[in-house]
Amino acid sequence: MRLAIDVHLDYAFPEPADVLLQVEAAALPDQRMDSESLVIHSDHPIRAVTGEDGIGQRCWAHAEQRLVADYHAIVSVERRSIDLKALGATPVRELPPEVIRYLLPSRYCESDRFEHFVRRQFTGLSGGALGAALVDWVRGALEYSSAATERGGGALTTFAERRGVCRDYAHLLVALARAAEIPARCVAVYAPGVQPADFHAVAELWLAGEWHLVDATGMSDASDMVRVAVGRDATDIAFMTIFGTAQLFAQSVTVRRL
Amino acid sequence: MRLAIDVHLDYAFPEPADVLLQVEAAALPDQRMDSESLVIHSDHPIRAVTGEDGIGQRCWAHAEQRLVADYHAIVSVERRSIDLKALGATPVRELPPEVIRYLLPSRYCESDRFEHFVRRQFTGLSGGALGAALVDWVRGALEYSSAATERGGGALTTFAERRGVCRDYAHLLVALARAAEIPARCVAVYAPGVQPADFHAVAELWLAGEWHLVDATGMSDASDMVRVAVGRDATDIAFMTIFGTAQLFAQSVTVRRL
Amino acid sequence: MRLAIDVHLDYAFPEPADVLLQVEAAALPDQRMDSESLVIHSDHPIRAVTGEDGIGQRCWAHAEQRLVADYHAIVSVERRSIDLKALGATPVRELPPEVIRYLLPSRYCESDRFEHFVRRQFTGLSGGALGAALVDWVRGALEYSSAATERGGGALTTFAERRGVCRDYAHLLVALARAAEIPARCVAVYAPGVQPADFHAVAELWLAGEWHLVDATGMSDASDMVRVAVGRDATDIAFMTIFGTAQLFAQSVTVRRL
Amino acid sequence: MRLAIDVHLDYAFPEPADVLLQVEAAALPDQRMDSESLVIHSDHPIRAVTGEDGIGQRCWAHAEQRLVADYHAIVSVERRSIDLKALGATPVRELPPEVIRYLLPSRYCESDRFEHFVRRQFTGLSGGALGAALVDWVRGALEYSSAATERGGGALTTFAERRGVCRDYAHLLVALARAAEIPARCVAVYAPGVQPADFHAVAELWLAGEWHLVDATGMSDASDMVRVAVGRDATDIAFMTIFGTAQLFAQSVTVRRL
Repeated sequence: MRLAIDVHLDYAFPEPADVLLQVEAAALPDQRMDSESLVIHSDHPIRAVTGEDGIGQRCWAHAEQRLVADYHAIVSVERRSIDLKALGATPVRELPPEVIRYLLPSRYCESDRFEHFVRRQFTGLSGGALGAALVDWVRGALEYSSAATERGGGALTTFAERRGVCRDYAHLLVALARAAEIPARCVAVYAPGVQPADFHAVAELWLAGEWHLVDATGMSDASDMVRVAVGRDATDIAFMTIFGTAQLFAQSVTVRRL
Repeated sequence: MRLAIDVHLDYAFPEPADVLLQVEAAALPDQRMDSESLVIHSDHPIRAVTGEDGIGQRCWAHAEQRLVADYHAIVSVERRSIDLKALGATPVRELPPEVIRYLLPSRYCESDRFEHFVRRQFTGLSGGALGAALVDWVRGALEYSSAATERGGGALTTFAERRGVCRDYAHLLVALARAAEIPARCVAVYAPGVQPADFHAVAELWLAGEWHLVDATGMSDASDMVRVAVGRDATDIAFMTIFGTAQLFAQSVTVRRL
Repeated sequence: MRLAIDVHLDYAFPEPADVLLQVEAAALPDQRMDSESLVIHSDHPIRAVTGEDGIGQRCWAHAEQRLVADYHAIVSVERRSIDLKALGATPVRELPPEVIRYLLPSRYCESDRFEHFVRRQFTGLSGGALGAALVDWVRGALEYSSAATERGGGALTTFAERRGVCRDYAHLLVALARAAEIPARCVAVYAPGVQPADFHAVAELWLAGEWHLVDATGMSDASDMVRVAVGRDATDIAFMTIFGTAQLFAQSVTVRRL
Repeated sequence: MRLAIDVHLDYAFPEPADVLLQVEAAALPDQRMDSESLVIHSDHPIRAVTGEDGIGQRCWAHAEQRLVADYHAIVSVERRSIDLKALGATPVRELPPEVIRYLLPSRYCESDRFEHFVRRQFTGLSGGALGAALVDWVRGALEYSSAATERGGGALTTFAERRGVCRDYAHLLVALARAAEIPARCVAVYAPGVQPADFHAVAELWLAGEWHLVDATGMSDASDMVRVAVGRDATDIAFMTIFGTAQLFAQSVTVRRL
């Protein structure tokens, strides 16, 4: 699968602010960069640093009045869709140390609240069968909608609201997985099937010794997602973190299959 | 049904504080006071005021160092258990004005979060059939336990935790009912079957032009509950509201069938 | 002071929904209705019910596809601005029963969280002097801005964010007042000085046996506000409560001095 | 400074549960292990894994019915107290990648809520002078007390409550520092001055290219703290994380200067 990614960001800043951008496709064994260009229009030097878990990179910019960024990339993805159900369970004590943080609750994935629900609802399941059941449950329970009462809430809110956007699906799946003692992280991706076209958020579950990409919304498949960043929840994988205030002028994301 | 109620409260106050007590059985057509005595050991005068919706009464006390209160009552309850399912629906536009507040979300009954869930889960039901289905759902979904991760949370938390104590059952039922456009309030009651014996909280649903007592925990029945206070949620019906800080020395509640 | 009020609301409804409107100026001794007209374009009958605390009225409408409402009124306000500082303190035990609920925390006015802060920050003050100090503190601590990180939060959030819109000012003042054992409620008003022109929210403090209107933002004065509704917080005084989902087409509020 | 640390934990488990323990002093250049012993009474094998940021270690245990653990260590601390005020500022773009996560909000350190407050309250300060001012502010604003209304809240709640225990002081300092663009993490430590003796939580601020231990409660000094674990907030540094439910039988922590 070969994908062309084009991003345009244009924001206004009432006061100067530091900005952390995270929009570049990550170079990884299963996604190869064929070409890439990131241009940030700014009078200040840009500094790139490695992202969470050593995946992808973030750019620091200093915005005065306005920040315009353009990103273009062509990426070849070679990744098979995997049947989660076929994957075995890993006892928590055998998890690698860098994965343990993804068992713990985080701001938008309040997994400690769901332990009792998960234990009762998915009794008898473990490993990939449990992971697949969680994905099915989230997909069936939620309705894709931006009409949820509370924007920017976490899994606890989404679990009650029963609807949300990609980030809400990812948060709820991640929270349930951690409650089930399956390490889970959030992933910012580019994917061609997203409607409306935008930055997209999915989950990764740690099963059988590896991370497995899962889109609980069903809009994209592991075989055509391009990872940008990973982390505990939306906090870590935001495409833009502003230490101050900004206003949106224009923003577009397009992802095309070549 | 004739009930003997005995309450003993003993609290210490590091600093003087105003205290609002709400422990007296309410005199109402369906619960008649045979005898009653409330003694508050305090050097300051006690002042009684009518409770929410004109039901029961609250007492203001001013606590210095210590507050000891003893309440004894014998109450005759004449109230039939009603089959909720048989009750008709009331269109919201026909609700009396004083009932409308019980359609709105409150601190611990975040009903606006549950509208989508209720609409999908209970499609086609209305009136008493819907009310009864909500009670059944809460009773089946929750497990009675004081082990919930977060104490003092509201319906949103309980909905995820899937366990709690009487107040949590009441909050969740009230939140779901309001989301279903059935007015619902929380009620502090004395009831003989509560284990462990304690102040008890239940719900009231407005159906067919009247309030109907419902204990979602199943521990008590409408025919043997004695109302103390009503309100939007635990905030309004607390047996003691302290404007300051206090420490518990001793507290006991016993309710016996005579 | 004579004010002309014009309101136009136009909302779309993807599914039929019950709607509770609260836009009419309340007829009260200190604000006299010179003329008034509310037209709600709907195929369903409209039903009016008295508002909270017997002030103003709410209208039930049933919206299918679209709800358009137009309200026009001319109101004469005769109300003196009062120097809060001159007002005495009322011991809580002398409060009328219907005022006690306004001492308790509510969803957006988490007053129980602020008791310690209020006691330390305003030591030695009571009654009107304390009320005035709270108003000054809120006005100085907050900056008027719609840029707060979290929309729709309560006093706890606003206290940290240190900025917000009229509703946030009102919530914070109300929460601090209740923490100081001064009854406080939220009030929806029309006022000519509001920039940008919109529905406006202020607070009322119970001092010396009466409610006193206070606008912590400083945008309007007690002498030129027209009360629409009162209640515990934004929940009760919303101009529109939708039991379902709606989209805004058009909305305007203008208030002119005649 | 030479310290003797003794910890005894005894918990009951109604159902079997995985438990992550984090009680061992970390071997680090500024704290040398003279002797150490951790005994966990369990029929299941214990597995140790490296802690967050490569500091210290966690142990997985599987608890059935009961878990008893005893930890004894003698640690030599060689660390100077540093005058924070003398330390320079590091522009965010020069931060090492592994430090950036400590600029972002987390569950109990909602730093994005405090940006406006910090900018107004500490105008003109930067680097160590700003860090020291934040510590002074937190120490002055809070009162040490376990009487806060809400247990287990985060910095937002503590900022309003104005009192709390060590964890609350650490969360608030960390949140304010991140809002001021100073990386900050939470640290579990053993320290001799803690009253009552218990596990202790402090903060670390990243200034002039290094982490600096700070106890906002003032109970302990950088020169006599022994680090156990670091992380984003209390979630990461808990001495015990239970995937299930447990009851406390007995727990003691003693730290003596030798």
